[in-house]
Amino acid sequence: MSAPRFAARIERTAAPPIPAVRAWAARYAGAAGPLLDMTQAVPGYPAHPELLARLGAAAADPAQAGYGPIEGDMPLRAALAADIAGTYGADIAAEEVVITAGCNLAFAMAMETIAGAGDAVLLPTPWYFNHRMALEMLGIEAVPLPARAEDGFVPDPATAAALIGPATRAIVLVTPNNPTGAIYPAATIAGFAALCRARGLWLVLDETYRDFLPEDAIAHDLFRDGAWRDGVVQLYSFSKSYCVPGHRVGAILAGPAFRAQLAKAVDTFQICPPRAAQAALAWGVPALADWRAGNRAIMAGRADAFRRALAPLQDWRIESMGTYFAYLRLPEAAPDAEAAAERLAVERGLLCLPGSFFGPGQARHIRLAFANAEVSTIAGVTARLAGFA
Amino acid sequence: MSAPRFAARIERTAAPPIPAVRAWAARYAGAAGPLLDMTQAVPGYPAHPELLARLGAAAADPAQAGYGPIEGDMPLRAALAADIAGTYGADIAAEEVVITAGCNLAFAMAMETIAGAGDAVLLPTPWYFNHRMALEMLGIEAVPLPARAEDGFVPDPATAAALIGPATRAIVLVTPNNPTGAIYPAATIAGFAALCRARGLWLVLDETYRDFLPEDAIAHDLFRDGAWRDGVVQLYSFSKSYCVPGHRVGAILAGPAFRAQLAKAVDTFQICPPRAAQAALAWGVPALADWRAGNRAIMAGRADAFRRALAPLQDWRIESMGTYFAYLRLPEAAPDAEAAAERLAVERGLLCLPGSFFGPGQARHIRLAFANAEVSTIAGVTARLAGFA
Ligand SMILES: Cc1ncc(COP(=O)(O)O)c(C=O)c1O
Ligand SMILES: Cc1ncc(COP(=O)(O)O)c(C=O)c1O
Repeated sequence: MSAPRFAARIERTAAPPIPAVRAWAARYAGAAGPLLDMTQAVPGYPAHPELLARLGAAAADPAQAGYGPIEGDMPLRAALAADIAGTYGADIAAEEVVITAGCNLAFAMAMETIAGAGDAVLLPTPWYFNHRMALEMLGIEAVPLPARAEDGFVPDPATAAALIGPATRAIVLVTPNNPTGAIYPAATIAGFAALCRARGLWLVLDETYRDFLPEDAIAHDLFRDGAWRDGVVQLYSFSKSYCVPGHRVGAILAGPAFRAQLAKAVDTFQICPPRAAQAALAWGVPALADWRAGNRAIMAGRADAFRRALAPLQDWRIESMGTYFAYLRLPEAAPDAEAAAERLAVERGLLCLPGSFFGPGQARHIRLAFANAEVSTIAGVTARLAGFA
Repeated sequence: MSAPRFAARIERTAAPPIPAVRAWAARYAGAAGPLLDMTQAVPGYPAHPELLARLGAAAADPAQAGYGPIEGDMPLRAALAADIAGTYGADIAAEEVVITAGCNLAFAMAMETIAGAGDAVLLPTPWYFNHRMALEMLGIEAVPLPARAEDGFVPDPATAAALIGPATRAIVLVTPNNPTGAIYPAATIAGFAALCRARGLWLVLDETYRDFLPEDAIAHDLFRDGAWRDGVVQLYSFSKSYCVPGHRVGAILAGPAFRAQLAKAVDTFQICPPRAAQAALAWGVPALADWRAGNRAIMAGRADAFRRALAPLQDWRIESMGTYFAYLRLPEAAPDAEAAAERLAVERGLLCLPGSFFGPGQARHIRLAFANAEVSTIAGVTARLAGFA
């Protein structure tokens, strides 16, 4: 008679970071003003009213209450394919898009498709914590590929090449990046694609934040060469672009061989993605193109406000900033990131994530999701950080 | 330069079965009447109108569009906890219920929590194909525990005991069963619980169909002994009980140590379950108790109709039948299950799943989800099966 055990790998995996940080908030007495939660990337404005109306209508429709196609409903697959085609200047067919119950699940399923226990995947550091957690749970080694502050947190294909071993199956890039906000240059992405092609690896691009790129910027031109289908996988999320994270919809763009394997994971993990939201988003993807473009401007305004808020603070440094996130270097005199973030929460009511959650070598950083807050609120960050340490 | 590879485990995993069967339907010319799809378990009646209205209202509400708590929204956790407490005569707190994006994901996450590559789990055969697929992808060996027709497809704890080895981490039971419909006696379930306790294994109960048990039947009394928290995990689905599979909501009931590990998987795979459906179901769980009870009667009526439809057919045998599913033995002269199911689809427009999808030793069976069809439609099954082989 002995207690049943847990998987060794899940025991080794870190606890979910955001609740841990929010728990600190309970000890904040309010001295510095209302709690400012910059932990999770959530758009600080509501979904478009017409999208909300359509979400409501679809959810009330018994036709959307049944199971749907495993890989998603065709109207949304077609709408996203057309959007990708327009955005990247490429030929993309509806069938090449697989709809998922969120981009986190998309990542986990893509990894299941590519690698298993004992295999390895290169992950630039700082990394998105849930990517690392997924790999750890699945027994796939996450090999840190250092992205350095002095390089604008853009990782280097040459450095990556030296880290590839016999167990390596893929390189994962998040661009625009979480947590640094860094936007990888198209040439860098092309360099990674060439490296992956030469070494027989998958290149997995998480482009959750691609709709917030500066106007007219093209993220990369990989999709213009049809050969992408044999080696590139793109992940997308509707959560941020359409302000509907609670509806749980994401997507995977991949070639036919990949999709044939992926379908097994998709059937097993999700059966089908949530249906009502798919119906509403199939309308929203084309119809809200201008609205999305407008949100870029809102984000840019918030980024400016954040820069202004930090400007008076001599001891704080914005080491990187882009879409959604600012990645700050802690003042010399401040304690390490976890203690610093706890103090910011408890003493100043500012919730942010310590760099240590994002991988090795990040103990002197914190991440603030400034996109969550309005410009007037962001101005208050100055007072929360001033004289800290 | 070589093409990137796929995970060996996903390549070994079978393709999703339901689309494969539905593809046969394209070759059906209509000779025997309209297509009769009895592949997937979907309630053949709509969700309650008030639930649909509330689903609509919640989905249109911007408050439900944001990320929610990782383990689900408290009102639904509390509602399901109260429902479980009432159903099983037990003390269950809201925190003990974790809401998931469907019961398939619940299973995958529970397995991640318990076992990893190289571990083993006992799975009665015939098994639910997605359980086997999940285990195969995760590298967890699914050890077949034969449930025999002569025992009403109820597996035996003594047989299970002999199959437990050093790598075994859990026993999974599906009751009422998919694909056989068999309802495991409470004493059998207690026997499995005792075995698991004695051998340090988790007992995982998938009770997706528990709301369709005959009235006043108690599935088991495991939850009356607080010790369940150290060894029993229950999975539940809102899909069938509330006719909302497209909204993707399921649940896991587990003790505190299990939940602490599970939370890591839940954060990583789902972030949060779909929110609008949670809000509507929090109302529906208590409010639709009578409606659910009424559906039991509908299901019983369909089961009777199915028995009547099969009665005139000498060469077909219902080997097992219960909630939702009938598990038929093929006529002696019929080809094996996959060929038989293909012929039934192509020649007679009757879609059902071949036993071979449900594990070893099932080649002489087919599964029909009779719950999908109205009584009048079920009567037509006689003609579809008559003179086959
Ligand atoms: C890089 C990245 N990928 C994926 C996700 C998850 O998105 P979803 O809500 O679609 O699961 C996030 C959310 O923060 C993210 O930052
Ligand atoms: C035994 C069993 N478990 C789980 C599921 C999946 O349910 P859900 O729709 O909640 O993912 C099904 C659906 O057919 C099932 O039969």
